[in-house]
Amino acid sequence: MRTFRSDNNAGLTPEALKAIIAVNAAGTHEIGYGDDASTAKAIQAFKSIFGPEIAVFFVATGTAANTLAIASLTQPWQQVICHAHSHYNDDESTAPERFTHCRISAIHSNDSKLTPADIERSANSRGDVHQPQPGVVSISNTTEFGTVYTAAEIKSICEAAHAMGYRVHMDGARFANAVAALDCDPRAITIEAGIDALSFGGTKNGLAFGEAVVFFPQGDGKAFAQASETFPYHRKGTGHLLSKHRFVSAPFAATIADGSWLKHARHANAMAKELASGLKKLGIEIRFPPQANGVFACLPPKVDAALHAKGHGYYPFGDPGWKLSRLMCSFDTTADDVRGVLADVAASLGR
Amino acid sequence: MRTFRSDNNAGLTPEALKAIIAVNAAGTHEIGYGDDASTAKAIQAFKSIFGPEIAVFFVATGTAANTLAIASLTQPWQQVICHAHSHYNDDESTAPERFTHCRISAIHSNDSKLTPADIERSANSRGDVHQPQPGVVSISNTTEFGTVYTAAEIKSICEAAHAMGYRVHMDGARFANAVAALDCDPRAITIEAGIDALSFGGTKNGLAFGEAVVFFPQGDGKAFAQASETFPYHRKGTGHLLSKHRFVSAPFAATIADGSWLKHARHANAMAKELASGLKKLGIEIRFPPQANGVFACLPPKVDAALHAKGHGYYPFGDPGWKLSRLMCSFDTTADDVRGVLADVAASLGR
Amino acid sequence: MRTFRSDNNAGLTPEALKAIIAVNAAGTHEIGYGDDASTAKAIQAFKSIFGPEIAVFFVATGTAANTLAIASLTQPWQQVICHAHSHYNDDESTAPERFTHCRISAIHSNDSKLTPADIERSANSRGDVHQPQPGVVSISNTTEFGTVYTAAEIKSICEAAHAMGYRVHMDGARFANAVAALDCDPRAITIEAGIDALSFGGTKNGLAFGEAVVFFPQGDGKAFAQASETFPYHRKGTGHLLSKHRFVSAPFAATIADGSWLKHARHANAMAKELASGLKKLGIEIRFPPQANGVFACLPPKVDAALHAKGHGYYPFGDPGWKLSRLMCSFDTTADDVRGVLADVAASLGR
Amino acid sequence: MRTFRSDNNAGLTPEALKAIIAVNAAGTHEIGYGDDASTAKAIQAFKSIFGPEIAVFFVATGTAANTLAIASLTQPWQQVICHAHSHYNDDESTAPERFTHCRISAIHSNDSKLTPADIERSANSRGDVHQPQPGVVSISNTTEFGTVYTAAEIKSICEAAHAMGYRVHMDGARFANAVAALDCDPRAITIEAGIDALSFGGTKNGLAFGEAVVFFPQGDGKAFAQASETFPYHRKGTGHLLSKHRFVSAPFAATIADGSWLKHARHANAMAKELASGLKKLGIEIRFPPQANGVFACLPPKVDAALHAKGHGYYPFGDPGWKLSRLMCSFDTTADDVRGVLADVAASLGR
Repeated sequence: MRTFRSDNNAGLTPEALKAIIAVNAAGTHEIGYGDDASTAKAIQAFKSIFGPEIAVFFVATGTAANTLAIASLTQPWQQVICHAHSHYNDDESTAPERFTHCRISAIHSNDSKLTPADIERSANSRGDVHQPQPGVVSISNTTEFGTVYTAAEIKSICEAAHAMGYRVHMDGARFANAVAALDCDPRAITIEAGIDALSFGGTKNGLAFGEAVVFFPQGDGKAFAQASETFPYHRKGTGHLLSKHRFVSAPFAATIADGSWLKHARHANAMAKELASGLKKLGIEIRFPPQANGVFACLPPKVDAALHAKGHGYYPFGDPGWKLSRLMCSFDTTADDVRGVLADVAASLGR
Repeated sequence: MRTFRSDNNAGLTPEALKAIIAVNAAGTHEIGYGDDASTAKAIQAFKSIFGPEIAVFFVATGTAANTLAIASLTQPWQQVICHAHSHYNDDESTAPERFTHCRISAIHSNDSKLTPADIERSANSRGDVHQPQPGVVSISNTTEFGTVYTAAEIKSICEAAHAMGYRVHMDGARFANAVAALDCDPRAITIEAGIDALSFGGTKNGLAFGEAVVFFPQGDGKAFAQASETFPYHRKGTGHLLSKHRFVSAPFAATIADGSWLKHARHANAMAKELASGLKKLGIEIRFPPQANGVFACLPPKVDAALHAKGHGYYPFGDPGWKLSRLMCSFDTTADDVRGVLADVAASLGR
Repeated sequence: MRTFRSDNNAGLTPEALKAIIAVNAAGTHEIGYGDDASTAKAIQAFKSIFGPEIAVFFVATGTAANTLAIASLTQPWQQVICHAHSHYNDDESTAPERFTHCRISAIHSNDSKLTPADIERSANSRGDVHQPQPGVVSISNTTEFGTVYTAAEIKSICEAAHAMGYRVHMDGARFANAVAALDCDPRAITIEAGIDALSFGGTKNGLAFGEAVVFFPQGDGKAFAQASETFPYHRKGTGHLLSKHRFVSAPFAATIADGSWLKHARHANAMAKELASGLKKLGIEIRFPPQANGVFACLPPKVDAALHAKGHGYYPFGDPGWKLSRLMCSFDTTADDVRGVLADVAASLGR
Repeated sequence: MRTFRSDNNAGLTPEALKAIIAVNAAGTHEIGYGDDASTAKAIQAFKSIFGPEIAVFFVATGTAANTLAIASLTQPWQQVICHAHSHYNDDESTAPERFTHCRISAIHSNDSKLTPADIERSANSRGDVHQPQPGVVSISNTTEFGTVYTAAEIKSICEAAHAMGYRVHMDGARFANAVAALDCDPRAITIEAGIDALSFGGTKNGLAFGEAVVFFPQGDGKAFAQASETFPYHRKGTGHLLSKHRFVSAPFAATIADGSWLKHARHANAMAKELASGLKKLGIEIRFPPQANGVFACLPPKVDAALHAKGHGYYPFGDPGWKLSRLMCSFDTTADDVRGVLADVAASLGR
């Protein structure tokens, strides 16, 4: 049965599974740890999206992608600014501290996105050796609330951050959904907007264990040089260098080459729009604009109880006071799945 | 083309691939992070091997398995004793230090296995706060030199280690090969011999990203309690908790249930025996008894040059002074592969 | 010249200096690292204050005292709740992360003290492996804003914290000033109120490099056992075990035995009261009640400029928007020093 | 009573105590954390010894000096090569791992000094991402066995180390004794010989909590730039930045300015020579040449028992199989102390 719990509850897209089968069928041995032909192809696939000047690396989990990307951009006495409800602050245990030693300065906000003003308030004012030094601003795009930063918003954040000595990391666990939502060139919301590092998610878009870290040269290029030189050591030194690398890289290569990474993201986004619009019609309040594949609804207790009784899966999310339920759509969510939950909501409301 | 570089250069066994396809075909959503049905099945599969009293966890890499197992058994001011050429000391960068903070006390030996006397010499004699405290003895079975500890040898090591306050970890990246070589009950060389923790390798035996950590209760059970309670936090807090857990656990469940984990290991071992015996017949010195799937040969320079010219792959291994070449056999090494390299050795020797 | 910059800008009290001279004059050798007679005496001195059931250790800096105390009470996947302007969050760089790996959850408040409600809001609600687990609540007494928690306030914080699985640490860099302000039994605001660990400051009260960490048994005694057993290893393993221990412990022993620790704190408190009352009379707004040895004043820009021009030293403090100046009194601040600065304020106001 | 346990069992030299009294007597306030006049003077004193191009920092303990110096020169994936009986490997718990994350590669040797050949054997041969990368070679001068590296020996070590990409750190906990023994310009065995960092010990030469870290520019100056820029953050971020800095720096300034640092070291060295020569005359074997202030004697069991019965203090040292006793002389060891122990040895031998 499919649920709305999380986009990581779905399995593999047909294209991803086909890539695994194909790379295995070759029957040849491949050198381990990333020096293989599939990984070379995957790197090229990323360069086809972002341009030739990037550095790209593969890991198995989103936490690894985020923490290692940020570790590669920081020193252990710096600080990382992020939204209090970002995955980095809220769902990665203390991996950020263990891998970076940096202070997390979490911004509590009623909005789903950070603004340059938020960041300026949180950035360290005194700057002496007693306080954490400027490090990284991390934003999520798609945000954890299903909204999407525009290229202009990202640019203004990067300018503010860079001016204060911070680098900017984008948690793109749902980057595909953001690109699909904005229908933009992926470069426009990354390298061209000033982003230094991107965690490019595959797992939540139908891969198995597939996350990529992409570094972009910005400014004088020093942060890029530090990050791309030290990432391999951070990755190996934390047990995140996968030996049979082709099984993580081949699905990336295939799904980027055939465009299915965006096709599936568009579908998930469309399902979420459908779901949100159906809920609204039923009088349910939707807290954030459903720009990507998540819907954040204020379900009346009786609706909530009825849905759980019917076996629907989804999680509470955000500040407890907000009383929000998060319903995530996946690449394999069907129109029937959406209709099904809407029907049960309607029934619970006596319609 | 297949080479003798490493058993991680091979792909997936047919049974492993089938398991991935099957678990995906179900088309259902599964709760992430290990609370799914496939993982429950895999845990049961491990209990069918080792008994019901174990705790078992899954990760993607051998370095993660080793370092997290040992981190769960230690405090940051202890020491870990291992062979200088163990994977833990020689091939995991400084992940041991980053995850445990423990001192590695590496034993330099001309032998492939550690003895209780080796361990006693390396264990800390003074015991005050200024020196690292007793922590873990780590042995590899199969060793990195293709030899296998017997149950009696392991028992004597565990007794010596426990008497000095150390717990014992077994790096079983090639545990299947050891069990196949000894043709023994897996319990005999683990729980019954006194082992506290086992890294049970899947990757080098035909899985994709598949390593399991198994903890065994020993003595008063305190080490087991500490390890099995803290492992989940260590794993999550280092980014090693895989969300789509069924893709790591289902292949384990399947290949243990159908016995193919041992079938493939037996085959790889047999190929190595064949290779070693062929090399010996050609007058090549073999340094360690080829008990499992690795052959460590002193190739004369002209043989070495000829093999590389022919495109054969393998690595130098051990102390540089030993001038050893390591030839690893995999589940998919064929008798023809062995005959091929032997023929090229013979030719290079003018036979 | 004396300033109001910080109570660590003063030198040694006569009693502290005398103790150093005396312990040296003996001319004997003493075993290092805390096994000496002076340290035994100092431990007894602390037991005379807090009772025989405590464990007490000495370090050189306040950051060491706080971070090592908290490291001894936590696991690397927990969280520490504290005031955003606490020394722990605001003035110890990332030593908290490097020594504990815990997440800091900083509470932004317009008040100088935390309440049980603040803590409950910040404590982790979900409790699964993805989020930091309950660890330590740290409060400062005297607070960084010169106010003092009462025994009742501390008790209610400890009850709330313990109920949620947190231990409670008190940063007592200015503990003497708090005791002097409350004129209470030191046990009443520590062991009897539920405190698990106290950083007992000497440096800001006229010692050279002198901080003590005191652990108190609470509840089932498990946290106390863990902390007092692991502290020595944390201290040594971070380079904080002083070899010539008697030079840190003898001044503690002497100044506790002769009561001068409280005498000097009372004097500093009295000077601050005098200063605050003088400023108020001159129409200067004082933000927090001057209960201990610090005064937090909203100095009009022209007053501020005039004071700096005259060579007076003090720092801005707190949220930039508060526009607060912190004037700290020390054991050696004189009534003349206070009159001097008041006169210059008056002059700058044209009175 | 004075013993031969350790040179850190002695108190303060008269000059050091005088400096503390003097800096306190001034009665003024001083800005904390090293921005004071005494620290500026101490820095100048170090420049008078080593030249103007150095960077110098003060900490309280030898472990802090060594680990922070090395942390400032390394990345967390590198290795540190040192003698197995060096203080760094043998007496600093796991502070090296906690502060640097580097692998310690300890050289087991029957000699007290390392040679370039030792270092070359231990340096990492493969150099790929799986093994720790070149980091730091650490040598002790005076060694832990009372011997002294000459300028020529140090130069050859530095050349070998630098050629392999390592920087060189000197643990100079007893640097004064080495300079006194060699009667050389301190520059000859440091900056001119290629040393990158020196832990300059004060504590074992009559200060209270006084260690300095000195960085020297070598080669292209990049290591020096990295180390001198990052040391302040490493120091603060591990709680080792002392607030009342003048009490650590003033004694350094005074004892360097008046030459007493070398006077006291010469005296301790002379006492050790006297002691060693007396023991030899009594037929006691001395294992290493007594070039500085330590004597390493093979005391027959009956002599050992008799000395302990008489209350003499000293420790076993080195490999247990060596059966060595270490007798350390201090700045305040008297000729009578030496005569006393020699008389008791003679008596125990029936002479």
